[in-house]
Amino acid sequence: MHLSKSDILSMSKVERLNLINSLSGIKPANLVGTTDKTGRENLAIFSSVVHLGSNPALFGFILRPQGEVRRHTHENILTTGIYTINFVSTTFTQQAHYTSAKFDSTTSEFQKSNLTPEYFSDFGAPFVAESPIKMGLRFKEEIAIPSNGTSLIVGEVEHVLLPKGTMDDLGHIDLGAHHIAGISGLNTYYSLTKTARYPYVRNHFELDDLTE
Amino acid sequence: MHLSKSDILSMSKVERLNLINSLSGIKPANLVGTTDKTGRENLAIFSSVVHLGSNPALFGFILRPQGEVRRHTHENILTTGIYTINFVSTTFTQQAHYTSAKFDSTTSEFQKSNLTPEYFSDFGAPFVAESPIKMGLRFKEEIAIPSNGTSLIVGEVEHVLLPKGTMDDLGHIDLGAHHIAGISGLNTYYSLTKTARYPYVRNHFELDDLTE
Repeated sequence: MHLSKSDILSMSKVERLNLINSLSGIKPANLVGTTDKTGRENLAIFSSVVHLGSNPALFGFILRPQGEVRRHTHENILTTGIYTINFVSTTFTQQAHYTSAKFDSTTSEFQKSNLTPEYFSDFGAPFVAESPIKMGLRFKEEIAIPSNGTSLIVGEVEHVLLPKGTMDDLGHIDLGAHHIAGISGLNTYYSLTKTARYPYVRNHFELDDLTE
Repeated sequence: MHLSKSDILSMSKVERLNLINSLSGIKPANLVGTTDKTGRENLAIFSSVVHLGSNPALFGFILRPQGEVRRHTHENILTTGIYTINFVSTTFTQQAHYTSAKFDSTTSEFQKSNLTPEYFSDFGAPFVAESPIKMGLRFKEEIAIPSNGTSLIVGEVEHVLLPKGTMDDLGHIDLGAHHIAGISGLNTYYSLTKTARYPYVRNHFELDDLTE
């Protein structure tokens, strides 16, 4: 089956939204925690977190154009310079999804979603207590994406919080063993099952050498 | 367990690479297909494809700094202005992973990995025949990420190829039912199992209304 650019443009808005959001494949489910300048907490689900580099440890995520749902997160990050990224587990996808409702700025999504804010040391942004793996980041830069008015928020990792034994001795995390959730489209959640780990590939490997 | 920024900086390179790459959670497994100006085919695995918008349908992916592994893909996209994004299935993760070996520009990763190039209509970039869901994109812009010298490649969807019946009538794709793979870190592959689909959340929903 083939869909052309014009087929996509002539779809209904909902069908196009669901299809195009599905076409990026599986995405991470993360809750981004912030506060405004008065300390009011905000929590929002994002599925666009992307790895940018390991040294320094940098992550990005995509914000929609100004004036839409993600505004509180955006304002808070620009104001305070810090935020948390919290992995969503399969055990609380419903609560995590509910943070995408449109609440006003005086309403805490933590409270509405029955999730628990938690602070670490003197880091001022709220972590999600229910989340097994979480990071505190410092805002580095916002990069405009002229094609459609979105932007990429870039931050550097200051803290990583995770249960002892989560990493193996090479630094890997088995996302399935820790019940981490994935998202496709806007609102479908997945559990993950590790199927293979291959070695780094160099020229001296042949295809048949890549056994798990 | 807590890791600070300085703990991360003092890890061994391999451990840091694996940990920080794992900390973006589950990522899509995609093969990007291109040709150089003489028509020589290139195929490379990426786990950084991100949805930017649905109208127009835009996707981005992250390229490492110049001079590293992804160079052929980069040069080819800038030269030809087109590329394909092909979903990796759990049935060919080994072959897909092998495209990350360092071959010279005269070597086709299709051939080395036993994957089959396939062309659609007059679109000049190669699709992966083994991939169930694939897109042909036109390059829109490259956006520099000053924090670490990476860049975001933005493209617009011109073609979508997928088996009939893959989309439901709202445009959703069940990634698990179609055996689509995910990646964590640099080299761990996952299968996906749909666990929940929630409605769009609006103010009139209460948390308890979010049943699957």
